[in-house]
Amino acid sequence: MTVKAAVAGASGYAGGELLRLLLVHPEIEIGALTAASSAGDRLGQHQPHLVPLADRVLAETTAETLAGHDVVFLALPHGHSGEIAARLGEEVLVVDLGADHRLRDASDWQRWYGGEHAGTWPYGLPELPGAREKLYGTKRIAVPGCFPTGGSLALAPAFAAGLVEPEAHFVSVTGTSGAGKSLKPHLLGSEVMGSASAYGVGGAHRHTPEFAQNLGLVAGERVTVSFTPVLAPMPRGILTTASAPLRAGTDLDAIRTEYEKVYHDEPFVHLLPAGSWPSTAAVLGSNAVHLQVTVDADAGRLVVIAALDNLTKGTAGGAVQSANLALGFEETTGLSTVGVAP
Amino acid sequence: MTVKAAVAGASGYAGGELLRLLLVHPEIEIGALTAASSAGDRLGQHQPHLVPLADRVLAETTAETLAGHDVVFLALPHGHSGEIAARLGEEVLVVDLGADHRLRDASDWQRWYGGEHAGTWPYGLPELPGAREKLYGTKRIAVPGCFPTGGSLALAPAFAAGLVEPEAHFVSVTGTSGAGKSLKPHLLGSEVMGSASAYGVGGAHRHTPEFAQNLGLVAGERVTVSFTPVLAPMPRGILTTASAPLRAGTDLDAIRTEYEKVYHDEPFVHLLPAGSWPSTAAVLGSNAVHLQVTVDADAGRLVVIAALDNLTKGTAGGAVQSANLALGFEETTGLSTVGVAP
Amino acid sequence: MTVKAAVAGASGYAGGELLRLLLVHPEIEIGALTAASSAGDRLGQHQPHLVPLADRVLAETTAETLAGHDVVFLALPHGHSGEIAARLGEEVLVVDLGADHRLRDASDWQRWYGGEHAGTWPYGLPELPGAREKLYGTKRIAVPGCFPTGGSLALAPAFAAGLVEPEAHFVSVTGTSGAGKSLKPHLLGSEVMGSASAYGVGGAHRHTPEFAQNLGLVAGERVTVSFTPVLAPMPRGILTTASAPLRAGTDLDAIRTEYEKVYHDEPFVHLLPAGSWPSTAAVLGSNAVHLQVTVDADAGRLVVIAALDNLTKGTAGGAVQSANLALGFEETTGLSTVGVAP
Amino acid sequence: MTVKAAVAGASGYAGGELLRLLLVHPEIEIGALTAASSAGDRLGQHQPHLVPLADRVLAETTAETLAGHDVVFLALPHGHSGEIAARLGEEVLVVDLGADHRLRDASDWQRWYGGEHAGTWPYGLPELPGAREKLYGTKRIAVPGCFPTGGSLALAPAFAAGLVEPEAHFVSVTGTSGAGKSLKPHLLGSEVMGSASAYGVGGAHRHTPEFAQNLGLVAGERVTVSFTPVLAPMPRGILTTASAPLRAGTDLDAIRTEYEKVYHDEPFVHLLPAGSWPSTAAVLGSNAVHLQVTVDADAGRLVVIAALDNLTKGTAGGAVQSANLALGFEETTGLSTVGVAP
Repeated sequence: MTVKAAVAGASGYAGGELLRLLLVHPEIEIGALTAASSAGDRLGQHQPHLVPLADRVLAETTAETLAGHDVVFLALPHGHSGEIAARLGEEVLVVDLGADHRLRDASDWQRWYGGEHAGTWPYGLPELPGAREKLYGTKRIAVPGCFPTGGSLALAPAFAAGLVEPEAHFVSVTGTSGAGKSLKPHLLGSEVMGSASAYGVGGAHRHTPEFAQNLGLVAGERVTVSFTPVLAPMPRGILTTASAPLRAGTDLDAIRTEYEKVYHDEPFVHLLPAGSWPSTAAVLGSNAVHLQVTVDADAGRLVVIAALDNLTKGTAGGAVQSANLALGFEETTGLSTVGVAP
Repeated sequence: MTVKAAVAGASGYAGGELLRLLLVHPEIEIGALTAASSAGDRLGQHQPHLVPLADRVLAETTAETLAGHDVVFLALPHGHSGEIAARLGEEVLVVDLGADHRLRDASDWQRWYGGEHAGTWPYGLPELPGAREKLYGTKRIAVPGCFPTGGSLALAPAFAAGLVEPEAHFVSVTGTSGAGKSLKPHLLGSEVMGSASAYGVGGAHRHTPEFAQNLGLVAGERVTVSFTPVLAPMPRGILTTASAPLRAGTDLDAIRTEYEKVYHDEPFVHLLPAGSWPSTAAVLGSNAVHLQVTVDADAGRLVVIAALDNLTKGTAGGAVQSANLALGFEETTGLSTVGVAP
Repeated sequence: MTVKAAVAGASGYAGGELLRLLLVHPEIEIGALTAASSAGDRLGQHQPHLVPLADRVLAETTAETLAGHDVVFLALPHGHSGEIAARLGEEVLVVDLGADHRLRDASDWQRWYGGEHAGTWPYGLPELPGAREKLYGTKRIAVPGCFPTGGSLALAPAFAAGLVEPEAHFVSVTGTSGAGKSLKPHLLGSEVMGSASAYGVGGAHRHTPEFAQNLGLVAGERVTVSFTPVLAPMPRGILTTASAPLRAGTDLDAIRTEYEKVYHDEPFVHLLPAGSWPSTAAVLGSNAVHLQVTVDADAGRLVVIAALDNLTKGTAGGAVQSANLALGFEETTGLSTVGVAP
Repeated sequence: MTVKAAVAGASGYAGGELLRLLLVHPEIEIGALTAASSAGDRLGQHQPHLVPLADRVLAETTAETLAGHDVVFLALPHGHSGEIAARLGEEVLVVDLGADHRLRDASDWQRWYGGEHAGTWPYGLPELPGAREKLYGTKRIAVPGCFPTGGSLALAPAFAAGLVEPEAHFVSVTGTSGAGKSLKPHLLGSEVMGSASAYGVGGAHRHTPEFAQNLGLVAGERVTVSFTPVLAPMPRGILTTASAPLRAGTDLDAIRTEYEKVYHDEPFVHLLPAGSWPSTAAVLGSNAVHLQVTVDADAGRLVVIAALDNLTKGTAGGAVQSANLALGFEETTGLSTVGVAP
């Protein structure tokens, strides 16, 4: 018996990626596709790569058009999912790909996003200590932000094992699709090709409190976070350079052993063999996170590199992975660790 | 009962794409992986995106390492497959992704490639008139060149129906992976990024006789071919602008009707709705060809735009599609029309 | 005594490139900078690469703000320059980088652009037979379109010498800056990176009549033109593949001799040595056009490849070159044949 | 009286950029051009963008071919310049664009590069405290590494003023040309386009001791350095995210005031207005470094973003700037702060 899913925000990048994944999901049938300003259009006008769905017509995003599904994926701008979720019924699995239900602390929400906090839902990053259990059978999932996904997995084992001081530093090089289809001058092809640029510097990016929340929970103490995103000329992919000060007596062997132990059975976290380094090309379109760890002895720091596809594991693939757990499917159903390269 | 396949040339781009597709093929099991200078390496060193095969070790490409398989895919430089195929036994399905067995005319082979002609095998472009039938149950398949794949499908219906004069003009914008992993200065990232350049101009590209062979067979008369490839800053994709002089009395309606008729039931040829134009992004990683047709009334020409992924439909996907026919599987088994975008 | 120049449309790509060139022009002083919706902004907000002008404030584009200059460069959307030019006085050199004054035939204007034809000004492509003389001392210049610049120079010598039949075929691969800073979804970085796409196919691009006008004048008879632009993932550059049917008795030697003769003394047209092929990288930021010619004997066609920078020789550099002639300066003043590569 | 300059390594990226700059340098005449494996070739085969020098033939790099010049620029792999410099005579200005003469500590040289240390020359980063004075009239210049150029300028004012703790963190996103024209698989266009990847992680990159040397001299105490380079899909440009722990009592106003004071009169360091952030596109081909500073209050860190062109200010432009000082020219002669964008 397949499960029927609606996708709200089907004309955007996150919605498109979700549909790409659902098209090969053996247990999920694609139901209503909805959008805001694109309602009434054929999906093919917005997602020409989704040939099997090209002639589906986009409905308006309302509680009515989303009703009658077992699962509703919300790929909406932040601030829009709380109200719709409230009207969908408690028996429906609602998966929020936006930011609304990620933060635990309402004051964090107000500082970083503004407006009323919609509440906190189980956090859809099963590889984080304690997270998977809360996803089994849940009816509400908050999909993590694309940056905290890779960054948290990069340092969580070190914090959990007390190998580093509670001070994390992240610089994440990201492709442009993370910004969505927004018509902003700095996102034009002419501007981004051939150029790297920084934004949200100095702790100004909204994913910062999510990093701190995740790592704080793992470390059992407040973790100071410095995070800088850098926009690079590629459509997809995030490469995060993560580091933290090593605690005395920790060496690379101990770290590697710890990471191998933690991630050995994780289907989507792939610790590379020593000497290999992650690249975003190797995870394009896949749900895998590639990691490599090393020690900078002179600087006294653990350095971890993490690569993922911001739209797949960083958004839509993470959503499907968590939905699988909520629906009682095998966690890997419909998902792949195989990238499209070159 | 699954079929066991070996891949020769597994460290290259064509071999890598083939493995990506075989990993999701429900009827084919991946056997030996072989290479030339990379023999002895882990596959993960060369294809980090193929996580499930990362620890497979590359054998040397010999008739011995390839023996014992039901299917052998040869992704080798031209001139290497004839001898190996001869030693593989007639009961084995041999699929040659290289150029050796595409041309019918030995003098064409000698002019364009040099050396002895290895022979002519059934041509793996099922959508070409008369081609599909020859692939059912065959034990030898010559996979078409990436450029003739799109170019032939772009104009074949017009030639078959006698709508245009026998004079075809092609300019194909291609990504860099078509040139393979060759360590040549003009293929360095620093050289190709931000740059478009022409090569093989004036009928100098080796795919030219293959265009002429395909269209001549369809038209039933000699077709003059002008073909220019242009290298563009992208890893994958071919966008072909094809044109031919319209015969008197032909209009766009007649052309569109003809193309719709010819391609209506083809699972991998997708004629876009009027007003939409193909882009290579929409077919990245997919086995689809996107087409659009129009008439340039002032110039008196039919103009057809075709987009495909040179590594998928243009090489490895085309190989799997034809192998499906040879093996008695559904033609679409393990293949997709869904691209990875953006 | 330097000449004072105003630039209307200073916040756009053409305006920015013009300012980049004027900053090193020894005879021209930069006066008013104007814009439409960006009026009031610092130039640095829109053109961060023009550091010496970063604090200049953009005025509104009106006849008043542009008054009091010896030269006024108009980098405006089409349809806007006629009226402003009329109010600037006949003693002012007005250089229109837009399309308004390029076409000689008012019916062509109405068919391709619509609205009233603003008139025809001397055409700023000095390398075209007969064009240079009309630019000496003129007070009005119509800067050519970026596509017809390269395409016309590619085939003009062949048409002028009667070496080819009057039937020209062009496919031009172009960077994205030719479309300006328009906020359109298909111009987003996420859409253009990794993708080639066609547009304006079938003679639908507005530069088509300009090709036909240029070549018709050179050939002395009507030339049929087929033109297709292809958008490629790079900010700048146009690589044009041009071809035409050879007349009987013409061979490559004759063609090469003719092209060498015609372009030998042209400072900005660089016929490459035999065996070298143009790339847009080699002309980035330069005012040079790189050409290579060959003969496709099987197809019976002359094939010419031309590379130029659409913003430099294709727009702003061409404007400065023609303005130099109009102002009595050396034609090459302030311009360079040196590109920025890699 | 112009000065005559030879360029050793003229076929590489650094050599090509140097020639691009020297072509517009009013006081320097270009003499011998030399190369290793490319000796005997026309320069146009390797640097098609340098049209005015296209027919110059490359000599072999020897003390003899380089003799008879006032200035010799050495753009050679490390380990090659010491011996040649020794044979060039003390009256010749030798500018080493390689690493041989940058480090002061022979044991650093041996650890990071191996082999005998060639000695320490005046360091060609005039904007560093104390550096400019040592360049006036010198006959030997060690041009800084491309990464330490931006990184040192990003944090030097803070260390000099004692505003931060002696612990610097750098992640530098770099274009591919920094790796030179090396024929390595990971530098192929197919590999780098669409991909970000890390290398030299954990303090393994050879520029690390140069960062530490520069900042240690400025701070007057040992500075711990963590440095990670990230390869991004663009030919040129480095965007560095630099940070350090703030000392108590330091706020953004104090920092901004200090940076404005230090860089106010520097012709090539451009502190952007508050709210603007650097991009590498804005400095392409220019000798400028664009900086922006901020404070991450939660993390207690100063964060500085620096953008430069690795081939211009990061290599060849820096070389010309320092050579100007050595030769008694105006420091800015032949150099520009204007980039080529978009």
